[in-house]
Amino acid sequence: MFDKILVANRGEVALRIMRAARELGVKTVAVYSVADKDTLPVRYADEAVCIGPAPAGKSYLNMSNIIAAAVTTGCQAVHPGYGFLAENADFARACAENDLVFIGPSPECIERMGNKAAARETMTACGVPTVPGSDGVVERVEDARAFADRVGYPVLIKASAGGGGKGMREVHKPEELESAFTAARAEAQAAFGNGDVYLEKLVLRPRHVEIQVLADDFGNQVALCERDCSIQRRHQKLLEEAPSPALNDQLRRDMGVAAVKAVRAVDYRNAGTIEFLLDESGKFYFMEMNTRVQVEHPVTEQITGVDIIKEQLRIASGEPMSCAGQAPFSPNGHAIEFRINAEDPEHDFRPCPGNITRFDVPGGPGVRVESYIQAGSTISPFYDSMVAKLIVWGKDREEAIARGRRALAEFKIEGIATTIPFHQKVLETDIFQKGEARTDFIEVTGL
Amino acid sequence: MFDKILVANRGEVALRIMRAARELGVKTVAVYSVADKDTLPVRYADEAVCIGPAPAGKSYLNMSNIIAAAVTTGCQAVHPGYGFLAENADFARACAENDLVFIGPSPECIERMGNKAAARETMTACGVPTVPGSDGVVERVEDARAFADRVGYPVLIKASAGGGGKGMREVHKPEELESAFTAARAEAQAAFGNGDVYLEKLVLRPRHVEIQVLADDFGNQVALCERDCSIQRRHQKLLEEAPSPALNDQLRRDMGVAAVKAVRAVDYRNAGTIEFLLDESGKFYFMEMNTRVQVEHPVTEQITGVDIIKEQLRIASGEPMSCAGQAPFSPNGHAIEFRINAEDPEHDFRPCPGNITRFDVPGGPGVRVESYIQAGSTISPFYDSMVAKLIVWGKDREEAIARGRRALAEFKIEGIATTIPFHQKVLETDIFQKGEARTDFIEVTGL
Repeated sequence: MFDKILVANRGEVALRIMRAARELGVKTVAVYSVADKDTLPVRYADEAVCIGPAPAGKSYLNMSNIIAAAVTTGCQAVHPGYGFLAENADFARACAENDLVFIGPSPECIERMGNKAAARETMTACGVPTVPGSDGVVERVEDARAFADRVGYPVLIKASAGGGGKGMREVHKPEELESAFTAARAEAQAAFGNGDVYLEKLVLRPRHVEIQVLADDFGNQVALCERDCSIQRRHQKLLEEAPSPALNDQLRRDMGVAAVKAVRAVDYRNAGTIEFLLDESGKFYFMEMNTRVQVEHPVTEQITGVDIIKEQLRIASGEPMSCAGQAPFSPNGHAIEFRINAEDPEHDFRPCPGNITRFDVPGGPGVRVESYIQAGSTISPFYDSMVAKLIVWGKDREEAIARGRRALAEFKIEGIATTIPFHQKVLETDIFQKGEARTDFIEVTGL
Repeated sequence: MFDKILVANRGEVALRIMRAARELGVKTVAVYSVADKDTLPVRYADEAVCIGPAPAGKSYLNMSNIIAAAVTTGCQAVHPGYGFLAENADFARACAENDLVFIGPSPECIERMGNKAAARETMTACGVPTVPGSDGVVERVEDARAFADRVGYPVLIKASAGGGGKGMREVHKPEELESAFTAARAEAQAAFGNGDVYLEKLVLRPRHVEIQVLADDFGNQVALCERDCSIQRRHQKLLEEAPSPALNDQLRRDMGVAAVKAVRAVDYRNAGTIEFLLDESGKFYFMEMNTRVQVEHPVTEQITGVDIIKEQLRIASGEPMSCAGQAPFSPNGHAIEFRINAEDPEHDFRPCPGNITRFDVPGGPGVRVESYIQAGSTISPFYDSMVAKLIVWGKDREEAIARGRRALAEFKIEGIATTIPFHQKVLETDIFQKGEARTDFIEVTGL
């Protein structure tokens, strides 16, 4: 195991990593921006190095300053957390060039999975289902029709040069295809000066279900069950749970097998997550792989008993993961994570940085809080607005929901607006209570 | 399930019960002494009734005031917590006479188990091992010798009228018996005016190992594994863990079977704990039964996933327990509870009531805090000195210890002295780390 590591991040994930390191007897070095100098992770670490001012470009994204901090403090490894440099292959390479272990996968894995087209090809090659697509530009409506007939309706026409929904059309029936195809091409031409379009099967009302994986140097590749992250607002996850209410043992096994196939295909090491879309018929499609630890990793920890950050450190230091013997994993109870952000749900989730005058965390059974905040802390306008993650565990989903309701009511944060009232409303919806939330949850419920 | 219950207690256990009730959708009524009027449980409950001034005799032990509070607020049941009236059969009867369900066993069970001699007889009758004793006064040294030969050395000679160690002698070898017997009788005569003595087998360097049981009206009687509470100071438990490092699966099963036998013998209902002495050879002896929930119940909850307070409410309301299907229980991971008291371990654990100026609880994975304190709270001199219970869970004992060390260091309490430094020292001892603590731990380590 390492003697000392540098934590190249801030906020709750920096503290999470330091706690794991401390439990393993590993010393930690914090890096911080001037704006973060009074935050808890800076005090918690054994040493701390200022790496520049906010915004992140001058500090948390400043590779040379971070590498220099690691080298001068005698660190053997760097944990990137999530965000910032966590999926930056150049940073992983820079670590290696300075004899620092990057606690994550190889730069090649990061690059391959970071490129959506390459990732999709890799998955297809190893037999992991992807959303069927037209393999490039479709020029003629007859070809579009042939594709749609082959994969089945509905399909989605997308502009090759596109973004923001321009040149995009959903086609639900054959008779709508021709006019939609013509309209999409015209709109793409007008918007981007390029009328090229391609087609994908449209996954209707999908769930976002992802598989947590771990792989080490000893041939152990395990899937740690799934997380359901369907409750999102503008593609930002708000609440995650494990296990997914949509999976049965067979589907869990199938998705786990697919995830492990993906990991083997790229000779992946360390922690990663394979994100899938799951349709209403139980078919799942590869979406992307995140080659780092995720914000929502604690729900997996709660139902498996595995400390994912510690496993990352073990794997990166050349030890075998400690949980391989537990595979195949099956969920023990149910966990829900609430992301508590300094945002005002009454005003379109407008960020509310500011001083926190009161911060009383919930307690009692089945309650876990991941935060870096204490009364008197300030939420900086320079960074993301996460204040805390509240994770609840129950022996079943019903108990987890009851505990979530209880713990959210106990969580007292004053001085800023937070998303606590939003989560309280989510728990009271029929859709959530029945475990039927899909990625259109916010649209459907109007929350 | 009940609609509304009264919580006849204060401090952390009152809050613990209210949290469980809230998760079950049960309304709560707090009762409080004048000294406690600003405490968290009073604010947390749906209603609160003042039942008199401190000390407890005028409030928390004032049965008629408590019963009146329950009746006038329309409660259906009363949870006594631990301490105060929890093992008072008259209070259980008074509840019944006022159509209130006492959340605990019958008054008859409380009485039978509260009388040590009756409890011992009951256990012997149903085949649960008790410490072998001479069944009454031993008048002649030959009879003492016959007893010692039968049960084996060492034995303990005790004054029938005794207490405080007067007239007590350990006898480790046959050749010591006669002089010890004579000396004990003489000392007892001098001290109490009564030279009668009796003999017991001396359990050398025992561990305190107790079995948590639950029993309902539907014939379910289950043992929820054990707790090891060997680390005590003057018979006060300081730190408890589950499972016991001394038990293997066979011994766990045997002790569980004995505990369930005991429960059946007295037709017990609700939660209870059978306390045993465990000797170095793995023999165990009934010590006493606590007919209530115990301070250390959370370690059992952490390794079984069972919410013991909720099960108490289910059982008392006439529902079956929800965890019967999990039996036989085997421990999932390892949990340790640290009792954090307002006592100064540097000055013989002198109580330190006072104002708490800072109260930052630890967070992160595997950490549970049970407390009723927030920054600004006052520890009253009128009641026991418990400030909080810190419970840590790890996938094995080693991880639990590392997490305990990490979480104790994070727990920042200012304004009063606490036992946190004591617990930190316990974790660093070889004896504790090896799982070899017995009830003489404090003596042996000098902590």
